Amino acid sequence: MTRCFLPALLLCIGLSGVAQKRIVVYQSDFGLKDGAVSEMKGVAMGVSPDLKLFDVTHEIPAYNIWEAAYRLQQTVPYWPAGTVFVSVVDPGVGTSRKSVVLLTKTGQYIVTPDNGTLTLIAESLGIAAIREIDEAVNRRQDSKKSYTFHGRDVYSYTGARLAAGVISFEQVGPMLPKQEVVSIAYQHAVMEGTVIRGTIPVLDVQFGNVWTNIPGELFRQLGVKFGETIEVRVLHGGREVYRGDMPYSATFGAVDPGKPLAYLNSLLQLSFALNQGNFAAKHGIGSGGDWTVEVRKKS
Amino acid sequence: MTRCFLPALLLCIGLSGVAQKRIVVYQSDFGLKDGAVSEMKGVAMGVSPDLKLFDVTHEIPAYNIWEAAYRLQQTVPYWPAGTVFVSVVDPGVGTSRKSVVLLTKTGQYIVTPDNGTLTLIAESLGIAAIREIDEAVNRRQDSKKSYTFHGRDVYSYTGARLAAGVISFEQVGPMLPKQEVVSIAYQHAVMEGTVIRGTIPVLDVQFGNVWTNIPGELFRQLGVKFGETIEVRVLHGGREVYRGDMPYSATFGAVDPGKPLAYLNSLLQLSFALNQGNFAAKHGIGSGGDWTVEVRKKS
Amino acid sequence: MTRCFLPALLLCIGLSGVAQKRIVVYQSDFGLKDGAVSEMKGVAMGVSPDLKLFDVTHEIPAYNIWEAAYRLQQTVPYWPAGTVFVSVVDPGVGTSRKSVVLLTKTGQYIVTPDNGTLTLIAESLGIAAIREIDEAVNRRQDSKKSYTFHGRDVYSYTGARLAAGVISFEQVGPMLPKQEVVSIAYQHAVMEGTVIRGTIPVLDVQFGNVWTNIPGELFRQLGVKFGETIEVRVLHGGREVYRGDMPYSATFGAVDPGKPLAYLNSLLQLSFALNQGNFAAKHGIGSGGDWTVEVRKKS
Repeated sequence: MTRCFLPALLLCIGLSGVAQKRIVVYQSDFGLKDGAVSEMKGVAMGVSPDLKLFDVTHEIPAYNIWEAAYRLQQTVPYWPAGTVFVSVVDPGVGTSRKSVVLLTKTGQYIVTPDNGTLTLIAESLGIAAIREIDEAVNRRQDSKKSYTFHGRDVYSYTGARLAAGVISFEQVGPMLPKQEVVSIAYQHAVMEGTVIRGTIPVLDVQFGNVWTNIPGELFRQLGVKFGETIEVRVLHGGREVYRGDMPYSATFGAVDPGKPLAYLNSLLQLSFALNQGNFAAKHGIGSGGDWTVEVRKKS
Repeated sequence: MTRCFLPALLLCIGLSGVAQKRIVVYQSDFGLKDGAVSEMKGVAMGVSPDLKLFDVTHEIPAYNIWEAAYRLQQTVPYWPAGTVFVSVVDPGVGTSRKSVVLLTKTGQYIVTPDNGTLTLIAESLGIAAIREIDEAVNRRQDSKKSYTFHGRDVYSYTGARLAAGVISFEQVGPMLPKQEVVSIAYQHAVMEGTVIRGTIPVLDVQFGNVWTNIPGELFRQLGVKFGETIEVRVLHGGREVYRGDMPYSATFGAVDPGKPLAYLNSLLQLSFALNQGNFAAKHGIGSGGDWTVEVRKKS
Repeated sequence: MTRCFLPALLLCIGLSGVAQKRIVVYQSDFGLKDGAVSEMKGVAMGVSPDLKLFDVTHEIPAYNIWEAAYRLQQTVPYWPAGTVFVSVVDPGVGTSRKSVVLLTKTGQYIVTPDNGTLTLIAESLGIAAIREIDEAVNRRQDSKKSYTFHGRDVYSYTGARLAAGVISFEQVGPMLPKQEVVSIAYQHAVMEGTVIRGTIPVLDVQFGNVWTNIPGELFRQLGVKFGETIEVRVLHGGREVYRGDMPYSATFGAVDPGKPLAYLNSLLQLSFALNQGNFAAKHGIGSGGDWTVEVRKKS
């Protein structure tokens, strides 16, 4: 903000010092065909018309907590400290799952039901603190009388008030022990002899690229240089779905259109693609805990 | 934005006092695959780069005025007074349908062709006043010479100028009699003996929940408590498509995954769902005037 | 926004005088299901939280440079001078294609790989200047170490810094000769005797209208008045797919629902539609260089 000048200097510093840049970023499985996302944003504008509202995606497959976790891990690091994320994928609405706000060690806030959505971001960015939302005070006025749309009445409302500086992080509610964050168990990538095993946590759906959870640092232990070939197996429930060789490439353009390549994606995790093609569709590959991959250097 | 200085201070205060929060919210059946929505927003930014632009949805099914009406009813109440909605679902473009701006009794403006889109919001929030857009003056410069894209050249342009305070509500054009608003006839929910009959105005498409037009107050007259069972029939053109029992529940989590429940949705209207499932898809249920429901308390 | 006071008057005028209105408009083939668009916007917010971020569309078909070019031509003229577009449809990522910023003669900036995306906007608005992005300095910090997501690390980063006034247009990088802009060859519309031939560059996908590249000025040379009939042929690879008569109409409402009409679309190019119907779907018509049309006045 470059709009603060002398008379208002202290006030401005004060406000921005609290934390926020007045940015709220939404994620949900609501889709964009009805009015649900707009209801959430309307409530935020009612809190403060100075807020700036953005989206990760609202196309998380219905009730897919894992993918919600993945999209947060993918995007949160690229937003400035002080950004408030509101993530609502909530199959357990109305059960005893907690509503929380997590503050990452890099300074972003995530407002969400604590149902596993925080699994990956807690690992990758680390937890500075986590608080349970005190819904007795942090809920839209009048919303107690009737049906509560938690995304609108609790999560968007609380996220907006936090981003606008109406409440402080402390006013969200009581601190929770960090180790109590709900985590989804998943197979981490491992090296076994000359083979690395991992899973396919998600597809790059638009282009059909296959993203694994094998980090670049682990992959580098195979000693594969750009242009050298690796052997790749993809299994579903233990059954082989794909087996093939492909070069490890720095760019898609390093292979001809339609040819396979392995590369490190924007999360620096090993991925497979066809240059200008759809690897997942061609070979019938999906994502999730039962999809595994094996990678070794071609001898 | 840097346009307010000391001499203009009173004016600035005055302007923001007039009404608007500089918020414009768009709805259409244009989809997001081409440039039409962006053209509308570009025109608004040309009016004033201080405006804040949002969306209800642009996925209203093509020419579906009823659903446009429903989405306005669903979302408008959650946006602050002074918000300007621009809703463009306009199968009658080029015919004699009027272009209007409606001011609700709660202070939101809706800029739209008057073709039935205002049916539900006029009922639920009430009409403070309605004015016909004088297109001789309220149209983008040069747009008269050639093809007019009304959404861009008249509706977005007028909505943006209203939200930015460039024109007042009075300058939109002449006042219209409130009773002249075009309304779509539809079956209201009614109690007949121990049965309530209603329609299915819309589906909660993302999750497959079935939303009826039976208000919570009417449903309460059946004397059903949370946990008690109701009998539900769904008919299409008078033919039974579904018949079943389900509990009236405060939360989805009150039944096992895959099991049906009845609940009050975010509009406080009776709805049917499968916990973590898709009720409409499982039973082949759609929405519209020919879809009716019957509900009674299980004896 | 009322945050500029007397001491900063010159500064404020200076800033807005430089060019930008702090508006960045994104276009890509990334879709909205994953986090890629959000990563790009997060980087922009990190550059300056005062930026205002919008979209053309992110539903450009994967790798379809032609359609990216078309959407820019369609939308750029409606955004104010100083707007910065970031267009990322980049099948050649990692090859030698240049990264550029084009300034149109009407004052908008377009940040993009120079792969043909600029074909149509260069023709219609004209090139004031074009510069190659010096990626040694204009790239997100730390992004050199590892995988580069060019849309995020180069294009969004550079576009945001340009829109925020952090860098000037000159600081983008060295000027390029205007005639070196990469252009896709395509069949321009031509009059041959009493027939006009053209192509179908794109469909109006949401409504199924067929848009040709025949400009209104050329069509007017046939001497067809509103209400008069034209003969239309549509060919695919030279084979006739549709032949029929339809009136040239000022509005869709001039014909009955379901009936065909010809009209000038929002780009003032000849188009075919069914009133309240889907012309392209009914007749199996697509778009691209191999789809041609012939139009003559009905005698």
